[in-house]
Amino acid sequence: MLADIEQIGRNPRTGGYRRDAWSPADMQLREWFTHQAVTRGLTSHEDRNGNLWAWWGDPAADGPGLVTGSHLDSVREGGAFDGPLGVASAFQAIDLLRGDGFRPDRPIAVACFTDEEGARFGVPCIGSRLLTGVLDPSRARGLADDEGLCLDEVLRGQGRDPGGLGRDDETLAHIGVFVELHVEQGRALQAPVGVASAIWPHGRWRFDFRGTADHAGTTALEDRDDPMLAYARAVLAARLQAETHGVRATFGKVRVEPGNANAIPSLVTAWLDARGPETAAVRRLVEELSHGVEVTEESWTPEVVFDDVLRLRVACAAGFDGHPAPILPTAAGHDAGILASAGVPTAMLFVRNPTGVSHAPGEFAEPADCVSGVVALAAVLADLTGGGA
Amino acid sequence: MLADIEQIGRNPRTGGYRRDAWSPADMQLREWFTHQAVTRGLTSHEDRNGNLWAWWGDPAADGPGLVTGSHLDSVREGGAFDGPLGVASAFQAIDLLRGDGFRPDRPIAVACFTDEEGARFGVPCIGSRLLTGVLDPSRARGLADDEGLCLDEVLRGQGRDPGGLGRDDETLAHIGVFVELHVEQGRALQAPVGVASAIWPHGRWRFDFRGTADHAGTTALEDRDDPMLAYARAVLAARLQAETHGVRATFGKVRVEPGNANAIPSLVTAWLDARGPETAAVRRLVEELSHGVEVTEESWTPEVVFDDVLRLRVACAAGFDGHPAPILPTAAGHDAGILASAGVPTAMLFVRNPTGVSHAPGEFAEPADCVSGVVALAAVLADLTGGGA
Repeated sequence: MLADIEQIGRNPRTGGYRRDAWSPADMQLREWFTHQAVTRGLTSHEDRNGNLWAWWGDPAADGPGLVTGSHLDSVREGGAFDGPLGVASAFQAIDLLRGDGFRPDRPIAVACFTDEEGARFGVPCIGSRLLTGVLDPSRARGLADDEGLCLDEVLRGQGRDPGGLGRDDETLAHIGVFVELHVEQGRALQAPVGVASAIWPHGRWRFDFRGTADHAGTTALEDRDDPMLAYARAVLAARLQAETHGVRATFGKVRVEPGNANAIPSLVTAWLDARGPETAAVRRLVEELSHGVEVTEESWTPEVVFDDVLRLRVACAAGFDGHPAPILPTAAGHDAGILASAGVPTAMLFVRNPTGVSHAPGEFAEPADCVSGVVALAAVLADLTGGGA
Repeated sequence: MLADIEQIGRNPRTGGYRRDAWSPADMQLREWFTHQAVTRGLTSHEDRNGNLWAWWGDPAADGPGLVTGSHLDSVREGGAFDGPLGVASAFQAIDLLRGDGFRPDRPIAVACFTDEEGARFGVPCIGSRLLTGVLDPSRARGLADDEGLCLDEVLRGQGRDPGGLGRDDETLAHIGVFVELHVEQGRALQAPVGVASAIWPHGRWRFDFRGTADHAGTTALEDRDDPMLAYARAVLAARLQAETHGVRATFGKVRVEPGNANAIPSLVTAWLDARGPETAAVRRLVEELSHGVEVTEESWTPEVVFDDVLRLRVACAAGFDGHPAPILPTAAGHDAGILASAGVPTAMLFVRNPTGVSHAPGEFAEPADCVSGVVALAAVLADLTGGGA
């Protein structure tokens, strides 16, 4: 099913995807989602935060349902699986259940959360953060992309009403349980399918290193106030501190002003991604890097420990040959983490990633493991919606 | 006279200029140049490399003339004086001479060389390098800007014929002597006006640090191949080597692929500007930074020592109260350096820069010093064209 969309937003030179939220590629993917819903007779709509829903049954009439799904946007030069695998597997799990004549005792929905990666506006999980009220809608409307376009303008340009952004209790009330299937993003999972125990606490910080622009040739070394030096020291310090504190720290995005080859910069802006098993260690690293530089916390997601009763039940339903699926933590953020923090009973299924590569064109999962993922997800849906064949 | 053009390409927020070659701002400046020529009855034309000429007299009929001028493009977020001061002063020096009833014994021209800064296509002094044949025209046509547009396409878009690029012996034959007036770019000049002894050898190198893109959260530190670390080490090493070797080294422009806050980069491309009084020291610095990384020399300008007989004559003509103007070297590249290397007798006049700031919005010269520059340039023109009042 991923083959339907494998050309959308793909860079033919590298094989990497660029599916920024609300870009033409994203709009095509949204159409594809709606088409999948319609061909299955599911009731689809977009909520006021831009998230997509396809309901089998009516949660307004029959009470909160079981929601599964993921996201369709990508990081820049990302892979084909991160996000779309969860959406496609959700539709396919419903197909499996229906093929077996299964009738759920409550509604089931496929969800697609908007802008999970935050590639365009800097803040990840915008759709689920707005839905749950974690992200202030006026802050969201003002977030600008690299071209200086605000989310507000971008939404208007796509015929959406940015006035509708914000916590949506009606939609939230329809989510009884959320189960997200996702490709694993490290090499920790040895079985085809696993279940998440927790998501590491993680965040993004913008560092603004300020200096004084001047001529690269005529300015004596001792007269320079070159912010690139402070940035370089921060990159190396981040690595050292990460080793010391047992956390992960990455500078993956940098902007230099004015960015002339023959001028000392006036400003180097860089984004730090930091995460680890312990909140205190992550906080300490960021604090140690923050001396003498302006640091803005662009996002912070506390540790998420998934509901342990639900987790065990899912692990059993998703297991094979009487063995429950293995349970493991993840260092990657997900909409499931945002919903869990907001009090929604939530679980995650992972599909094995043989190389561990993710957020890159080489991201991969074996077709057989993807099938195991669909089978496991269908078993979990059947278990949790308690109906019978 | 600079007031005419002070709004063109100016960022109202910062006061910095962006006058990329062949941009709308540059096209407006070119029109302004032609207008200045026409209102003075000078014969203006654009040569096949895009350089502008305004002749007082006819070099085809009366033999090679004295050319003065500079450039109108800027670095990004540059100042108002670097380039335009030399062009405006050239027109004003002609006004002064004419006001005195001066009649030169050979033609005089004002020149404006195209794309001196190289802000758009990476290579500085494109106009004078093409004119003198130092830059291969097919390489020039293929140079791409940040949007991926080649010079070839950009020229066609402005109605120019890129087929005409390349060494232009006819135009060169018209340049008997070239005198460029320029704002000084350091704080070395204490008098209002000085004369250049030499231009330091200087160059630009592109460094491609390659790594492996991966997820910033899930990739263990020991599994990473993060090119940002190698870049950071190079930035700090460049500073250290610059101190050791008595040269100047700057990384002022960086591009990161894919540039996601939550992904380890696959490629960090950075540009090194290096210069110094001694070629060997500059070469040694670049060599020491080149281990384990792909380095491309994008431009190299050997040391230029200006003609010393001409230099003394210019210093005497430009002096005040019987004292010759001070003579000093510069670390900045100029079209004058390109022409001097090509065998054109060349001299440079500098106008004092009280703060030394250049290639930045704060670049400044006192109005009184600018007037002294015009007076000195007029005296030099009068001296070298040997006529009488």
